[in-house]
Amino acid sequence: MSETKILLSERDIPRQWYNIAADLDTPLKPPLHPGTKQPVGPDDLAPLFPMALIEQEVSTQRWIDIPEEIIDIYRLWRPTPLYRARRLEQALDTPAKIYYKYEGVSPAGSHKPNTAVVQAYYNKQEGVKRLATETGAGQWGSALSLACKLFGLECTVYMVKISYQQKPYRRSLMQVWGAEVIPSPSPRTQAGRAILEQDPDSPGSLGIAISEAVEDAASRDDTKYSLGSVLNHVLLHQTIIGLEAKKQLELAGDYPDVVIGAHGGGSNFAGLAFPFLADKAAGKEVRAVAVEPTASPSLTRGHAAYDFGDTAGMTPLLYMYTLGHQFVPPGIHAGGLRYHGAAPLVAHLYEQGVIEAKAVPQRAVFEAAVQFARTEGLLPAPESAHAVRAAIDEALLAKEEGKERTILFGLSGHGHFDLAAYDAYLAGELEDFELPQEAIDAALAHLPKAD
Amino acid sequence: MSETKILLSERDIPRQWYNIAADLDTPLKPPLHPGTKQPVGPDDLAPLFPMALIEQEVSTQRWIDIPEEIIDIYRLWRPTPLYRARRLEQALDTPAKIYYKYEGVSPAGSHKPNTAVVQAYYNKQEGVKRLATETGAGQWGSALSLACKLFGLECTVYMVKISYQQKPYRRSLMQVWGAEVIPSPSPRTQAGRAILEQDPDSPGSLGIAISEAVEDAASRDDTKYSLGSVLNHVLLHQTIIGLEAKKQLELAGDYPDVVIGAHGGGSNFAGLAFPFLADKAAGKEVRAVAVEPTASPSLTRGHAAYDFGDTAGMTPLLYMYTLGHQFVPPGIHAGGLRYHGAAPLVAHLYEQGVIEAKAVPQRAVFEAAVQFARTEGLLPAPESAHAVRAAIDEALLAKEEGKERTILFGLSGHGHFDLAAYDAYLAGELEDFELPQEAIDAALAHLPKAD
Repeated sequence: MSETKILLSERDIPRQWYNIAADLDTPLKPPLHPGTKQPVGPDDLAPLFPMALIEQEVSTQRWIDIPEEIIDIYRLWRPTPLYRARRLEQALDTPAKIYYKYEGVSPAGSHKPNTAVVQAYYNKQEGVKRLATETGAGQWGSALSLACKLFGLECTVYMVKISYQQKPYRRSLMQVWGAEVIPSPSPRTQAGRAILEQDPDSPGSLGIAISEAVEDAASRDDTKYSLGSVLNHVLLHQTIIGLEAKKQLELAGDYPDVVIGAHGGGSNFAGLAFPFLADKAAGKEVRAVAVEPTASPSLTRGHAAYDFGDTAGMTPLLYMYTLGHQFVPPGIHAGGLRYHGAAPLVAHLYEQGVIEAKAVPQRAVFEAAVQFARTEGLLPAPESAHAVRAAIDEALLAKEEGKERTILFGLSGHGHFDLAAYDAYLAGELEDFELPQEAIDAALAHLPKAD
Repeated sequence: MSETKILLSERDIPRQWYNIAADLDTPLKPPLHPGTKQPVGPDDLAPLFPMALIEQEVSTQRWIDIPEEIIDIYRLWRPTPLYRARRLEQALDTPAKIYYKYEGVSPAGSHKPNTAVVQAYYNKQEGVKRLATETGAGQWGSALSLACKLFGLECTVYMVKISYQQKPYRRSLMQVWGAEVIPSPSPRTQAGRAILEQDPDSPGSLGIAISEAVEDAASRDDTKYSLGSVLNHVLLHQTIIGLEAKKQLELAGDYPDVVIGAHGGGSNFAGLAFPFLADKAAGKEVRAVAVEPTASPSLTRGHAAYDFGDTAGMTPLLYMYTLGHQFVPPGIHAGGLRYHGAAPLVAHLYEQGVIEAKAVPQRAVFEAAVQFARTEGLLPAPESAHAVRAAIDEALLAKEEGKERTILFGLSGHGHFDLAAYDAYLAGELEDFELPQEAIDAALAHLPKAD
C-alpha cells in the first residue's frame, strides 16, 4: 500500500498568503457606513483593528508575505497532513479518489488558530496590549486565547452566557490559555447592561456578545477587536490551508476535480478553496463547493444584499449572501456554522457563478461523520462533517456514473469536544431542520433598506 | 529559527518492535497460577488470548516483526511528531534541551491505539469474532473500539458504572466506533450479578469490570480478552514510540541524557524508554525516569512481590511493584495512572536499578501542564502531564547546576477530554494526595502469601 498521509516539512510552509481579491473579474463591493451609506475608510476601522490588518482587508495585491514570526508559530502545528482516504474509498466502493486536509492537529483542534495568531501578531506589533472578542461555543475564543498567550497579549472573550453555563469545557480551555472569559450579556458594557435591565436572565446571543466585544475595544485605547471569520483578512490568512494542500497534491501527482469545504462565515471554505480558484482564474477546470447546514442556508436560500455583520446592527454594512442579520438559526450542533451571512468574498464568487453551494441536513451530516470515523478513524467536528457528507455524496455519484474523479475536502477540526452531539445522534435524538419559506422571508424582511 | 517538529515519513515507520526481554541480565520471574503457584503456560492463557500474543508474551527474541497490515493501520497516525520544546525552554531559561514525543495525534487522542490495533489484528488472524475488555474513564476502551472496527471485530467494553454515568463522552466515542458499552457491574456476568445482589447501586470499579470482561471472554468460544497495559506484549507494541523517537533524535543530531514517561500500568513509559535502554544495555549512558502520582505510588512506595493484576484476584500472579491488589487510589484526575501495580518488565528493571522512579503530587502536575500549554500550545492529558512536571523539574535542575542536558519526555495524549480537571485546578479545587504510611501498609497486608 502506498502512503496514507502526504506530509510537508516546516521548510515547505508557504511564505505568502494568497489574496483572491487580485483575481476577481469585477471588484468587491465595499463595506458601507450604515448611516451615510458611503464606503468606510481605514479611519473608520482604526479604533477596532490595527493598520496592518486594515491594509490587508482592502489589498488587491495577489501575494502577501507571511512574517517570519508567524511562520515560527505556525511550526507548532503546520504543515498539517493531507490524507488519502483509502479506507473510506474502499468502504464506498467508489472509483473516486478522496483526499482530506486535516486541521485538527492544531492545539485548539481546529483551523481557527491560523488567523488568530496572525491577528495577535499584528496587534502586538502596533503596541496593542489587549484583544476583545466574542465566542459562541468557544472555538474562536479558544484560538484567540492561545494566540494572545503566545504573543503576550491580554485577551477578553465575551462568551454567550448559555454556552458559558452549559459548555464549560471550552471556557476552561480559554482560561488555561490565560484569557478572561465573561458571560455575555455582562454588566461590563453599556450594551450588556441594557440587555440585563430588560432581562436579567438573558441567555445571551452571538449578536449581543459581538456588541459587547466591539464596545469594549472601541472604548479602550489599549484594546482592539478581533473577528474569527467573514472579513477579507481572515479569509486571506486561512489560505495557508489550500496552499499547503496544493503542494501536497502535487507531491501525490494529483489535482482535484472538486474542492469541498464546510461553510459558516466562510473562512474555512475560503482557506481551502481560494488557492485552487487561482488556477480556475487561470483557465484550469476545478469546482469548489461550499457546504452549509439546511438550518442556516445563507448561500442556498439567502439574498445577495448589504447587511450588518452582527445581529445587533453595529458593524458596517457588508455585501453578503444573507438570511437577514436578525435570523436566528435553529440549534444545530455545528455551532460554528450558525451564522446569518456568507463572507463578502465568498458571496461575490457565488454571485458570479465561480463557486457552488449545497445545503445538507443534520442527520445526514452525522451519518457521514460516523461512517468516516469508522473507516478513517478520526472523529470529525460537526462543522467539518458537512464537508464529509458532501465528499461522500460526490464519491457515490462517481460510483453511480462509473467515472473516476479526485475529491479534496477540508476536515477543519476534530470532534473530541463534540461528543454530546454524537451521543444525541446515536440516541436518535437529532432533528433535521428544513426551514419553511415563511421563516426565511420573515428574516429577510429585516434587511437594511438600500438608499 | 530551526525546525520545531522532527518528522518522519511513513517509509520510516519501524518494521520491528523491540523486546527488552532479550536484554535482561536476569530473566523475568514468570507469572504463577494462584492455586498451584506454578508458572502458567500457554495453555492456561489460551482461553483469553490468541496464540500469537501469548508467544510474544514469553518471547526473548530481541526484534519482533510488525505485520504489514499493522503498518498500514499505523499509517493513519504514525510516525507521530517529535517536538523540540523551544518556547518552553525559553520560558524556563534553562540550558537544557527539551524534546517531547507526541502521541495525541492518534484518532483516540492517546498512545493506546498502538497496541489496540495489534491485539485486534492477531485476534482477527486466529478467527476470533469478538473482543471483551474493561475500561475506567474510557481511554483504553475507546482505543480498542476503534481497533476492532478497523479489523471488523465486535467489541464489548465493560465500563465502570460511575464513569459510564458521569463521563458519557468517552462512552459516546466508543459507540461511534461501533462498540457495545456495558455499565459494570452488569447482570450480564456471574461476577456482575454477585456484586449487584449485594449492592444494586454499586458504582463499580476497574477490578469488577476486569472480572466481567474476563468471564465474558472465557465463557464464549468466539470471544477473547484484551488488556491495555501491564503485560509484556502490550509494552512490546508500545516500543514503536521510542523506536521512532530514536530515529528522530538521530535526525536532530541529538541523544537524550534522560528519558521521562508517565507511569500507570507501565506501557506508556516502557514504550518510550525501552528502546533507549537497549543502548544502556550496550554500555551507553542514559537515565530513564518513570513518573507516577503520589496518589498511586506503586514504584516509589510499593513492594516487589507476586500479586494479582486485578482487584478481584482472578488473574495469574504477576511479579510487580505493587501496593496490593486491593489498594484503591484516591480519585485523582489522571485516571489512567490509578493502578495498584507496575508492569512486570518495569518492576524488574526498577528492582535491578536500571531505571528510576519519581512520584509527583496532583497540583504540581497541573501547574506544569498549564505552563506547558501556555508556551507550547498543546494541552496535555493529566496522565501525560506527570511527565511534563518531571521534565520541567529536570530542566530547572539543569539551570540551577548551570549544566546542559538533553531531556526527552513522552506527551502520551491531549487533554481535550479532560477540561473538567483543568477547570477544577484553575478553581483551586484540586487536592494533593500524600498517602499516610498506614494506608500503604494496610493495602500491602492483602498481598497474596508466598508459598
